Amino acid sequence: MKPIKVAIIGAAGYTAAESIKLLLRHPQAELTYLTASQTHGEIGEIFPQFKDRLNLSVEPLDLDKLSEVADVALGCLPHKVSMNFVPQLLAAGVKVVDFSADYRIHSVEKYLKVYQVEHTDPENLARAAFGLPELFREKIIGATLVANPGCYPTAASLALAPLLQEGLIAYDDIIVNAISGVSGAGRKASLPFHFPEMNENLFGYATEGHRHMPEIEQILTDFTEKNIKLLFQPHVVSIDRGIAETIYCQPMGKVTHDDLSKLFNRFYADEPFVRILDKPAAIKNVAHTNYCDIFPTVAKGKVIIFSAIDNLVKGAAGQAIQNMNIIFGLEETLGLL
Amino acid sequence: MKPIKVAIIGAAGYTAAESIKLLLRHPQAELTYLTASQTHGEIGEIFPQFKDRLNLSVEPLDLDKLSEVADVALGCLPHKVSMNFVPQLLAAGVKVVDFSADYRIHSVEKYLKVYQVEHTDPENLARAAFGLPELFREKIIGATLVANPGCYPTAASLALAPLLQEGLIAYDDIIVNAISGVSGAGRKASLPFHFPEMNENLFGYATEGHRHMPEIEQILTDFTEKNIKLLFQPHVVSIDRGIAETIYCQPMGKVTHDDLSKLFNRFYADEPFVRILDKPAAIKNVAHTNYCDIFPTVAKGKVIIFSAIDNLVKGAAGQAIQNMNIIFGLEETLGLL
Amino acid sequence: MKPIKVAIIGAAGYTAAESIKLLLRHPQAELTYLTASQTHGEIGEIFPQFKDRLNLSVEPLDLDKLSEVADVALGCLPHKVSMNFVPQLLAAGVKVVDFSADYRIHSVEKYLKVYQVEHTDPENLARAAFGLPELFREKIIGATLVANPGCYPTAASLALAPLLQEGLIAYDDIIVNAISGVSGAGRKASLPFHFPEMNENLFGYATEGHRHMPEIEQILTDFTEKNIKLLFQPHVVSIDRGIAETIYCQPMGKVTHDDLSKLFNRFYADEPFVRILDKPAAIKNVAHTNYCDIFPTVAKGKVIIFSAIDNLVKGAAGQAIQNMNIIFGLEETLGLL
Amino acid sequence: MKPIKVAIIGAAGYTAAESIKLLLRHPQAELTYLTASQTHGEIGEIFPQFKDRLNLSVEPLDLDKLSEVADVALGCLPHKVSMNFVPQLLAAGVKVVDFSADYRIHSVEKYLKVYQVEHTDPENLARAAFGLPELFREKIIGATLVANPGCYPTAASLALAPLLQEGLIAYDDIIVNAISGVSGAGRKASLPFHFPEMNENLFGYATEGHRHMPEIEQILTDFTEKNIKLLFQPHVVSIDRGIAETIYCQPMGKVTHDDLSKLFNRFYADEPFVRILDKPAAIKNVAHTNYCDIFPTVAKGKVIIFSAIDNLVKGAAGQAIQNMNIIFGLEETLGLL
Repeated sequence: MKPIKVAIIGAAGYTAAESIKLLLRHPQAELTYLTASQTHGEIGEIFPQFKDRLNLSVEPLDLDKLSEVADVALGCLPHKVSMNFVPQLLAAGVKVVDFSADYRIHSVEKYLKVYQVEHTDPENLARAAFGLPELFREKIIGATLVANPGCYPTAASLALAPLLQEGLIAYDDIIVNAISGVSGAGRKASLPFHFPEMNENLFGYATEGHRHMPEIEQILTDFTEKNIKLLFQPHVVSIDRGIAETIYCQPMGKVTHDDLSKLFNRFYADEPFVRILDKPAAIKNVAHTNYCDIFPTVAKGKVIIFSAIDNLVKGAAGQAIQNMNIIFGLEETLGLL
Repeated sequence: MKPIKVAIIGAAGYTAAESIKLLLRHPQAELTYLTASQTHGEIGEIFPQFKDRLNLSVEPLDLDKLSEVADVALGCLPHKVSMNFVPQLLAAGVKVVDFSADYRIHSVEKYLKVYQVEHTDPENLARAAFGLPELFREKIIGATLVANPGCYPTAASLALAPLLQEGLIAYDDIIVNAISGVSGAGRKASLPFHFPEMNENLFGYATEGHRHMPEIEQILTDFTEKNIKLLFQPHVVSIDRGIAETIYCQPMGKVTHDDLSKLFNRFYADEPFVRILDKPAAIKNVAHTNYCDIFPTVAKGKVIIFSAIDNLVKGAAGQAIQNMNIIFGLEETLGLL
Repeated sequence: MKPIKVAIIGAAGYTAAESIKLLLRHPQAELTYLTASQTHGEIGEIFPQFKDRLNLSVEPLDLDKLSEVADVALGCLPHKVSMNFVPQLLAAGVKVVDFSADYRIHSVEKYLKVYQVEHTDPENLARAAFGLPELFREKIIGATLVANPGCYPTAASLALAPLLQEGLIAYDDIIVNAISGVSGAGRKASLPFHFPEMNENLFGYATEGHRHMPEIEQILTDFTEKNIKLLFQPHVVSIDRGIAETIYCQPMGKVTHDDLSKLFNRFYADEPFVRILDKPAAIKNVAHTNYCDIFPTVAKGKVIIFSAIDNLVKGAAGQAIQNMNIIFGLEETLGLL
Repeated sequence: MKPIKVAIIGAAGYTAAESIKLLLRHPQAELTYLTASQTHGEIGEIFPQFKDRLNLSVEPLDLDKLSEVADVALGCLPHKVSMNFVPQLLAAGVKVVDFSADYRIHSVEKYLKVYQVEHTDPENLARAAFGLPELFREKIIGATLVANPGCYPTAASLALAPLLQEGLIAYDDIIVNAISGVSGAGRKASLPFHFPEMNENLFGYATEGHRHMPEIEQILTDFTEKNIKLLFQPHVVSIDRGIAETIYCQPMGKVTHDDLSKLFNRFYADEPFVRILDKPAAIKNVAHTNYCDIFPTVAKGKVIIFSAIDNLVKGAAGQAIQNMNIIFGLEETLGLL
């Protein structure tokens, strides 16, 4: 079988770097084209860790070339920028796994509200599959455009889906306390993330409402067909990578740790990338992997779920490759174990 | 005025080291005696940072000597051990600021339940003052035995007291999500805190109920005379020091960020060590200080309070010295700014 | 082609964990047996990062079973222990890549002096190949026992070999200043590596002479047939993984940065895992890879070489798999890119 | 006695913040004025750790005001900028402790060579005292302008002075391998020091010759009246603060560890801020202190000295306050223990 040819658009940020790293190990995919709007040059200049490891430079986008050399593009562009490129890529016959939020929010009204800009590509928005395979695998098979989920929403949705589907918790009294490593903030230098400011530090942010809050609500509403409402509060901590979420829910009747453990084990029995633990999830055990570790329990009359992923892998590049594998009918775990 | 002479009991752990550091700078206190049960020798051998900085060794406890050279003892012993020493110290006329939990929980029944051991000193327990000056200053003045609060309870109680006193939140639906640096786990080496295991890591623990949960409930119940119930969930993260708590509450009616900001500023207007912020508290801004930074806000129908302290300072040694200053009628901030 | 079947002896430490991680990705190797002397049980209990990722437990050594299910054993045992097991493994027809120092030092007299114990397996010592492929590849091909080099010696030898071979530097006036991440100290908890002691820290150690000093001298003496003498001074710093060495040499005549750059590029032109840089090597660019990054330059009349590797990969598990690939005639880079 | 009134010029960087922190604790100094050229506003906005701790804003420089309210200015300006302000301050009768390099290099020719700009204030340069009290205390007493030493030079010079004075090592074959925490790079955000790039990283820099190399040579040449030549190679590592230097020297005849230990203990017997250790210096033991820890030893025919300081304290703000104490005839350790 011929390998899938992969391009990366927006190849100068952390999710692109993680995608490159994973694709270098992928036995059925070949990286053929790297493009970015502002940062150009040898890959080893842009990411010194890749010096001598691949024979590609980051170039300005040439759509003809891209469509010639690539079957699929991983879109590592920021929100609001991505929707300017996706229509052209699709029109040129290139499949797209888009990392931005541009194709995640189904409603153009909500998109406008959350991202403060008109959506310019409602047609493709309407047919994008939401790339959380554990919940929406059927829609990803055969898709040409996949909206790769946000990092926080991945950890939260996998933690909450079983409980909400079973009706074990109230669907409008959920608190997601989330903590992320600093790579989640991207590769642009700024004072808050300057090493001596950020090191040995932890703080909350986005108290006015993080843009991932409606994304999580939509995922879980889509999955359960109930109108899910939750409070999502993110924090950042001085580690490179990883997300840990501690999620507090109101049980609908009596539920024990044992019930939860059985439910989660059953729900994710066939999922290669979800592990149900018997103690709280630790970031270090999922770092550099595509796993989501989940520990559900009960305490003081609440249901608590601990969920951890690597924000750059299961929260971005790994999940994108998982989606790519699904689209192209490959073994879903290829290149990800 | 003659300086206060201070002994430290249990002088081989992190809270003792922090106490030594602060006392070296204190203009009206003099460290005169260091004792520990197992670790003896030159202070510079036990804590290399103090080499040549004080002329004391850590010795086996000699109660006669201690009572001769010290006006007050900082008790840095572990829970269950402290109550074996405190009665002797008090009997010898030495005042005590006790860092352990042994004199924090008023009820011997609850103490038995939480710490799984009979309390052997109920008389002194009954007269111990709880050393959280911002809430119970009057009782500390003139006390001979002060129970220095736990680190997590300090951050949580200062964050919740104004809201509960004003009746702005439900008193039985409070979630305290807490994260601590590793020094909170003490100085005993073990695999989970071995550097390569703990570094770049974060995980929850004590899901079966941390011993600080009843302590926080008792503090707030004492202060408000309501029966406060809350869920406390701690986590540990790969930083040296600091605690950040994000606390979720159910408002009792309409409340705005502005209301909260005014309330907290008013409530703590005269407190030298509480700062009310206009954005979430960051651990780095309180590290190595005796401050508690608090940011109250509202989001998605909940009241959220962000609270941060240094677990070794305001959460232990700094607060102990604040209590010592109060006991001896000194300026409360002496040695702590 | 049937995959190589691999056993790991001493499967409870960090180099074993790194070996497992790499073997899970290796397209032509299969992990079949894990054994350790003291730590037994499910792999997910011992290394939570491997839960559900491989279907093996760590068992007490059963040599018959091992020889039945494995073609090769990676020996992750400590120095002095390894030589008790290697003869049995070889006798049972199992090839061995040994991570310990037991088969690195050719002379039993020197072994006794450095490791303070008699060598009990001089026969196998005599025929062990030294597993630094870039310098001794020919001897590794077809070997049944490979002594995998120490982490520090790998970085130092690759940095010095070209210069010494060309006679560009004095062979008896070399200073290797080395710094390692904490994983190099192994998985046993102890106070110096307890997180709050080690975090935000850096210190030198082994000033009386580290055991890797004679190993480096031997490698370079073997390679150049000159009697190399050097001073090796290690330090440990609060990062998980990685070694950075800055090596100071006395040039034998005039030499420029340009000369050095050409020499190193030529010397390592065909080596897949050595990269010659045009600025000092950074640990982060080699972390989690099998690369050795080298930057040679001149300053103030000295030759300086900066060399960096990941101590767990090129300094241990990665290099072992590189050696395994060579022994079995596989593509040398298999599973390592 | 009335407290010394202190102004800080360039009050928006890390050395200014450290100066503020130390001055808040100083019993005989009072911070009266903060000024910076570009960053103005409440101190709590610029450095959140100082919110509510001092009643000053950072203002544009008003020389009349400064000279009215301050006896001494700590000049925390960058190199090349400082010499534009110092003459005015001195002319206005304000004493200056200058953190920049502008008054450190005695010769205007060398200054031009190293800093690539003409020195515009040679008169004051000629009378500036070099502020390393352990070597040049006599000249600091009564000075009106003190050039506070660089961080790297402080650690190196204190380590080398005893050896060079005694003639125990060759004065032209010295290698200083230095490693600094990231605060040494200042408070300006840039990609190399962006948290996810710098974290878990270590690399060398300035291989073309760091500007502190001639400064160290000058200090030691001044002190010994020999023409000292050395190679200085700095590195940066992912910790907040601290410098560790490992210095390799050629002994002039036989010398033992014991000789060195005696020499260093004797040389620094009366120095309050130098500690001679019996094992390699560790950054953590000097962090947040004004101490320089030194361990001299011999190995493989070389003399090795391990030296550690906190770059922001003994390497900047602490040493400046030590100098200030000397200038004003105060106890030298005031505010620094």
